[in-house]
Amino acid sequence: MSRPLLQLALDHTNLQAAQHDVALLQDHVDIVEAGTILCLTEGLSAVKALRTQCPNKIIVADWKVADAGETLAQQAFAAGANWMTIICAAPLATVEMGHTVAQACGGEIQMELFGNWTLDNARAWYRSGVRQAIYHRGRDAQASGQQWGESDLARMRALSDIGLALSITGGITPTSLPLFKDINVKAFIAGRALTGAAHPTQVAAEFHAQIDSIWGAQHA
Amino acid sequence: MSRPLLQLALDHTNLQAAQHDVALLQDHVDIVEAGTILCLTEGLSAVKALRTQCPNKIIVADWKVADAGETLAQQAFAAGANWMTIICAAPLATVEMGHTVAQACGGEIQMELFGNWTLDNARAWYRSGVRQAIYHRGRDAQASGQQWGESDLARMRALSDIGLALSITGGITPTSLPLFKDINVKAFIAGRALTGAAHPTQVAAEFHAQIDSIWGAQHA
Repeated sequence: MSRPLLQLALDHTNLQAAQHDVALLQDHVDIVEAGTILCLTEGLSAVKALRTQCPNKIIVADWKVADAGETLAQQAFAAGANWMTIICAAPLATVEMGHTVAQACGGEIQMELFGNWTLDNARAWYRSGVRQAIYHRGRDAQASGQQWGESDLARMRALSDIGLALSITGGITPTSLPLFKDINVKAFIAGRALTGAAHPTQVAAEFHAQIDSIWGAQHA
Repeated sequence: MSRPLLQLALDHTNLQAAQHDVALLQDHVDIVEAGTILCLTEGLSAVKALRTQCPNKIIVADWKVADAGETLAQQAFAAGANWMTIICAAPLATVEMGHTVAQACGGEIQMELFGNWTLDNARAWYRSGVRQAIYHRGRDAQASGQQWGESDLARMRALSDIGLALSITGGITPTSLPLFKDINVKAFIAGRALTGAAHPTQVAAEFHAQIDSIWGAQHA
């Protein structure tokens, strides 16, 4: 199991505020995510601006694509994204078309898991070539009191068995990381836990320290 | 059953091209939709520009919201949208928060049906106050050969029974309208069938003529 990465989610409603947080945090994270809110308010220029600001980071276009997989993947990867998200409710044809474009561009697709997906869906995504998924405790679900539970962890283990590496999101803090020690974690995604902190870079350091203590320190 | 409306879907990758088609077609349609592709490439300015261009039309922000229902609904309705779409995979909390904001703004939520939704989901959306859904043959599913079938029509009738008015999309042409004569149709959504036609306004007229012949002419 590889060492999980740390992903900064930008869910700002304007680019300037997002770029302010990126300037502060980009040297302390591995992945920078143009969040859905930012993308719907600022458009493709958000992805382009983050690519320019962070030439060497993995950039995620969190578009939660449901249809038009080919066109949207072309747009996202041409704008500089490395990874693009597709919502689990999308038809398999959308996943296949998105993955084909991703592969041609050296990018990757991440399946975003919300609602009624099944392990058979996950197996079909894997057969299509997809190797990543995002396991979500949505911010609205979280606000309404939903906690991480054993059923989440059991589903995560089943997804790991299928061969999907998981990025985990939804109110993740450094102290929640030990929960996921048996999961094949690609990244922990943190938004407001980082950007809303009194000392954001200190929280990023706490994430890395926890990752090191659970998964082992990164080799130089 | 009320007379179905005609909705122009704008799935352009740039606003200028979309506005060109709007100028040509806005007097021939009832609803103008800022499609997902347009919104992800141009951002909120797409919704604002369409509101300015079409002060008296119903404007749809086809954002397929999966999370952050409150923030995104505030953004969409403040920008001038009348209706905003939420993907069926979204947590119920997202639907409820989106609907609350919509109601406060005089707007409406449309549930966008893709993938594994159930009639129990639909009943829960209805109980949350939502009265519209979008029944989809995705463009990727359509490109891979999926046709409208009796199972689609049966699910549409069940959604009508629950109390959800349906907007229907996915390769809809004037000749396909009789298929839906027993459904509570809110709107037929056409994108390339209109914008890609040699004579777009003539195709719009054919849609209206079919709607009139099946559902009765509009009273003056």
